[in-house]
Amino acid sequence: MNDEHQKKLTDYLAAFMEELVGNGVDEVVISPGSRSTPLALLFAHHPGVKTYINVDERSAAFFALGIAKAKKKPVAILCSSGTAGANYYPAVIEARYAKVPLIVLTADRPHELREVGAPQAIDQIDLYGKHVKWSIDMALPESIPSMLQYARSSAVRGVALSTGYPEGPVHYNFPFREPLIPDLQKVEFSSGTPGKRVLQGERQLSPDFKHELQETLVNTQRGLIVCGPGLSEEAVPSIVRFAEEYALPIVADPLSFVRSGNHSKEHIIDCYDTFLRIDELKESLQPDLIIRFGAMPVSKALMLFLKGLPDIPAWVVSKGEEWQDPTARGTDFIQCGENLFCQSLMEQSGQRNMDWLEEWKRVNKETKDLLVKGHQSWDEGMAVHQLIQHLPEGSTLFSSNSMPIRDLDTYFFTNDRSLRIFANRGANGIDGVVSTALGMSTVSQPMYLLIGDLAFFHDLNGLLTARKYQLDVTIVVMNNNGGGIFSYLPQAGDQTHFEDLFGTPMDLEFAHAAKLYGAHYFHVGTQEEFIPALQEAEHSKGIKIIEVVTNREENVANHRKLWNFVSREMTKNLKGENLDSSSE
Amino acid sequence: MNDEHQKKLTDYLAAFMEELVGNGVDEVVISPGSRSTPLALLFAHHPGVKTYINVDERSAAFFALGIAKAKKKPVAILCSSGTAGANYYPAVIEARYAKVPLIVLTADRPHELREVGAPQAIDQIDLYGKHVKWSIDMALPESIPSMLQYARSSAVRGVALSTGYPEGPVHYNFPFREPLIPDLQKVEFSSGTPGKRVLQGERQLSPDFKHELQETLVNTQRGLIVCGPGLSEEAVPSIVRFAEEYALPIVADPLSFVRSGNHSKEHIIDCYDTFLRIDELKESLQPDLIIRFGAMPVSKALMLFLKGLPDIPAWVVSKGEEWQDPTARGTDFIQCGENLFCQSLMEQSGQRNMDWLEEWKRVNKETKDLLVKGHQSWDEGMAVHQLIQHLPEGSTLFSSNSMPIRDLDTYFFTNDRSLRIFANRGANGIDGVVSTALGMSTVSQPMYLLIGDLAFFHDLNGLLTARKYQLDVTIVVMNNNGGGIFSYLPQAGDQTHFEDLFGTPMDLEFAHAAKLYGAHYFHVGTQEEFIPALQEAEHSKGIKIIEVVTNREENVANHRKLWNFVSREMTKNLKGENLDSSSE
Repeated sequence: MNDEHQKKLTDYLAAFMEELVGNGVDEVVISPGSRSTPLALLFAHHPGVKTYINVDERSAAFFALGIAKAKKKPVAILCSSGTAGANYYPAVIEARYAKVPLIVLTADRPHELREVGAPQAIDQIDLYGKHVKWSIDMALPESIPSMLQYARSSAVRGVALSTGYPEGPVHYNFPFREPLIPDLQKVEFSSGTPGKRVLQGERQLSPDFKHELQETLVNTQRGLIVCGPGLSEEAVPSIVRFAEEYALPIVADPLSFVRSGNHSKEHIIDCYDTFLRIDELKESLQPDLIIRFGAMPVSKALMLFLKGLPDIPAWVVSKGEEWQDPTARGTDFIQCGENLFCQSLMEQSGQRNMDWLEEWKRVNKETKDLLVKGHQSWDEGMAVHQLIQHLPEGSTLFSSNSMPIRDLDTYFFTNDRSLRIFANRGANGIDGVVSTALGMSTVSQPMYLLIGDLAFFHDLNGLLTARKYQLDVTIVVMNNNGGGIFSYLPQAGDQTHFEDLFGTPMDLEFAHAAKLYGAHYFHVGTQEEFIPALQEAEHSKGIKIIEVVTNREENVANHRKLWNFVSREMTKNLKGENLDSSSE
Repeated sequence: MNDEHQKKLTDYLAAFMEELVGNGVDEVVISPGSRSTPLALLFAHHPGVKTYINVDERSAAFFALGIAKAKKKPVAILCSSGTAGANYYPAVIEARYAKVPLIVLTADRPHELREVGAPQAIDQIDLYGKHVKWSIDMALPESIPSMLQYARSSAVRGVALSTGYPEGPVHYNFPFREPLIPDLQKVEFSSGTPGKRVLQGERQLSPDFKHELQETLVNTQRGLIVCGPGLSEEAVPSIVRFAEEYALPIVADPLSFVRSGNHSKEHIIDCYDTFLRIDELKESLQPDLIIRFGAMPVSKALMLFLKGLPDIPAWVVSKGEEWQDPTARGTDFIQCGENLFCQSLMEQSGQRNMDWLEEWKRVNKETKDLLVKGHQSWDEGMAVHQLIQHLPEGSTLFSSNSMPIRDLDTYFFTNDRSLRIFANRGANGIDGVVSTALGMSTVSQPMYLLIGDLAFFHDLNGLLTARKYQLDVTIVVMNNNGGGIFSYLPQAGDQTHFEDLFGTPMDLEFAHAAKLYGAHYFHVGTQEEFIPALQEAEHSKGIKIIEVVTNREENVANHRKLWNFVSREMTKNLKGENLDSSSE
C-alpha cells in the first residue's frame, strides 16, 4: 500500500519535473518546509537542476526573480503549505508587471484536509488572484499513463505561458498526502530533449498596416522615439538603425539598455529629465509624432511633457496586448515585435529633418555640460555620478526605486561601455530589492546594487543567501536616514506630521548588519572616502556594503539648486538665440 | 478647482474615519508611502487615534494583528499603492484563520491610471482574494451628502464584519487623485458616539436540539471534553463548570486558556501529548462522546487518538459556520455560543462517572511525575520548563510555531497563576512572529516571546518598531541553528539532502542583530546561565534577547529518550495493575 503510494508520488512528480527541466527551468529557489518535501527532494536529486535554499520566502521569490531577469529564463520557487506562499505575493506581482517568467510551486494539504481546521492549511487555490498568468490546482499524484501525461502537459503549458509574451508568473498548487518521501532510487532523469514543447511565433504587421504607418512616417517632420524600461535588449540595434534612417531623436530611459552598449549614441537623448522642466524648451521641442517602445520612462518631467502635447499621433509599439499608456495620449497601439516593426518600416526610406534632430542634440549637450559644471557639492547625486564612472567594464548595476533610479536618470549619461542597468519597475516597490540584485549576481558579474536605507532595511534578510552561497556583490547604500523622495513632494510642507509619517528616520547603523552577515563594510562620510571604498570593494570577494551617509535636506536643496542653475543658464542661452535668429 | 478637490478629499475621509474610530478602531499601523497620504495625515490628526509607523509592511501587518489579538478589537493598517499591500498578505491570511479583526486600508491610483502602465500601480481590487471577509473598492472622494453617508456606512459595515464571528480581516481599497493633501484645519473630529452602529446577537440552541443533546449527555458514561486554541477566554469558566457537572475530563491545549488562571484545575488534563503515545492507554481511555471547543489542539498524539476512535458521537461546538474537523470524525456541528451551550445543557443535571474522570487524572498525574523525573539533561525542553516556572505573575507568553509550541504542550502544566499563552495558530506560519508579539506587548505586560532561530530571523525587521517605540519584551531565542522540527520527521532519514533542504543551518550570531536594534543581549550556553539571564531581563527595559544555544540532534535524542522512559514506566504500571485486577 505504502509502496503503491510512493510509486505514484515518484512517477508523477518525476514526469512533471522532467518536462519542467527539459523546457528550460533548471534553477529553483526552495524555502524549507515539510509538505513540499516530495518536490524538494526531486529537485535536489535532479542532476541538471541548481537549487538554492532561502528561509524567507519573500526574499526567496525576489532572488528567483533576479535570476530570471538576468537569464531571461523561467526560474522556479518552491515552498510549503500555509502563509509561506503568501510571502511570494510581492515578487509574483512584480514578475507580472515586469514581465519576468516565474514558476511558483506551492505544496498543499490534500483535499480531505482543506478548510477543516487542519494545521498549516489555508485555501491556496488561486492564491495570487489575477496576478498570475495561469494557476492550476494539480490532481493528487497517480501513476497511470494518462495522469503521467497530464503531469507532463501541465509542466510544458505552464513554462510556455510563463515565457510567452508578456512573460510572467504561473502557479502550480500541489496537494500531497503523507508519507511525503519519494523513492529517489527509482528515478533516472533523462537529460535529453523534452517530450513536449511549444513553439511561439511573433506578431508582425500586415502589408496594409505597414503601408499606412510608412505614409505617416514619411510625412513627419518632427518625430520622437521614446524608449522605456522593459525594452528587450535585442531590439536596441534595430531601433537605433530605424532612428538613423528617419533622423529621429531617441529619448532613452536609463533602464532601456539604449544609453550604453556598443551601438551608435548619436541619436540618444539622456538629459531630458532636466531640460524638459523648462517651459520654453517644452514649447520649442514639440514633436508631431511619438513612437514609444517599452514602458513609460521614469522621468516625471517627460511624462508631463508628453501629457501636455497637442493631439498628435502617438504610437505605442509592443509585442502583445498590454496597454502601456499612462498619459492616455496613445493613438495607435501597434502589436508587433519591435525588431519586425523597425525592419519592415525601414524598407522604404523616409525623409530626414536633420535640424530637428540637431536641436534635440544641442539642447541635450548643453544641459549635460551644465549639469556637470553646476554640480559642485558632495551629495547623493554626485555619488551616483562617480559610481557610474567607476563601474568596471561589463558591470551590471541594479537600482532601487525612489531616489536611486531618479539619480541614475540624471547621471547615467550615454556611453559605449558594456554596462547594464536594471530595476524592479514592474510595481516600483522598495521590497525585495536586495534579493533581486543577489539573484542577478549569480548570473552577471561584476554586480553592483544602488539602494537607499529604507529599501536596504526592507530586504536585509536577503543577505543571508549572499553569505550562504558566497555571492559577490557591491552594495552602495545611500543612507539619508529615511525616505528621501518625500522631501521632493508636497507632503514636505506639513511640518507637524512630515518627519513621523514620511521622513521615517530609522537610525540604523548598518555596520552591525554587515557583521551579522559577514560582509565587508565601508563607511563613507566624505567625498574623499568614496572612490577608495569602491576600489577596495572591486578587488574583494563576497558582500561589500558601502554605506554613504548623506543628508536628506541637503540632497533636496542641492538638486533644486542644480535644476535652477541649469534652467537659468539654458533660458539665458535661449534668449540669446532668439536675439540671434531675429537678427537674421 | 483645487479647493474643491481638497474639500471632497477632506470631508469624505473625515466622515469615513469618524465612523471607523467611533466604532472602536483607534489604533493604526502606517507604512510610509505617498498615495496613502490623505488617510495617513487624517489618522495622525485624529486625537483619538494611536499611530505606529512601520516601514516593512509585512511586519506592520503582524504588529497590528498582535495588538488586535491582545485587545480583541479591530486594528487598522494603512499602506501605499503597489506591492506594499501584497506584503500584508501573510498577516491577512493569519487573521482570517485565527479570527482576528483587521482593517486593511490600501491606497490606489484613480481609475484612469489603473492597468495602463502608470508607476507603482497594480490591480489591487480583491487583492486578498478569498482571504478577507469583505473587500470594497471605494468610490473616489466626493462631498455630496449621499457620498458622505456612503463613506460612513462603508466604515461601519467593515468594522462590524471584522468583529462579527468569525472575526477576520476586511479590505478597503481607496483610489486617490493628486493633490493628496487634505485640509486638516477644516477637520474637527467629534469624540462622541458613532452615527451608526451594528448590534450583533449570538446563536443559541432551540429547546428541541437542547433536549436531544441533553439526552445523549445523560446516557454517556465516558464523555471527554477537548479544548483547543482560539477558544474565547470568557467561555472557560462555563466549560469548567459544565465539566464538573458531568464529571468530564478536559483535554486542554496550551493555547486554550484552560491550563492556567483562577478557575478550578481538577478536571484539566495537560499531559495527554505524552501518554496518548502509549497504545495500551489509548485503548483503556476510549471515550463514548467527544465534545470539542475551539480549534483542533496542537498535539499530534491527540489527533491520532481521536482519529482512531470507533464511531462515537463527536460534538463540535462553535459560534459560527466554520468547519473545525480535520479528523472528519465530527458527527454533530453545534452552532451556538460556548457559554450558552454549557449553560443550557447544565439546567438538567446529568449522571457522573467518577471512575472515568479519576482514571484520566491518575494517568495524567503519573505522566507528569515521570516527565519531571525523567528529564535530566539541559536542552530546549528543560529551558521551556524553566521559562514557564520563571514567568512573573500576569505574564503573556507568545509562542512561535514548530518546536516552541510543542515544547509548551509538554511543559506548560496546569497552574493557578495568571499566565496567558498565545501563538499564531491560524496558519501556523513562522512569519511575522516577532511583530505579533511586539504588537501584543503594547497591550500586555510583562511580555515574553519564545521562538526558534528560523522564525526569529524571518521577522528580524520587526525589531525596528520595538526600538522606535521603546517596547518592553523578553525574547527567548532557541538557537539550534536550523529547523529543529524536521529532525522529528521522516525527512531526517535522507542523509544526502537532509541538512541542506531541511536542517538549513544559518550560522547567525544574533548578538549583532541585538546591536543593530539596540537590544540587551544574553548568551546562554549552559543551564546555569539561563535563570540569571531571565532575572536580569525581567528587571531591564526595552528589547531583551536571550539566545539559548542548543543542539538539534541532542534535543531529538533527549525527547525520544524521555518519551521512551515515560512509556516504559507507564506500561510497567499498567501491567502491574492488570495483574492486580486479575487477582481480584
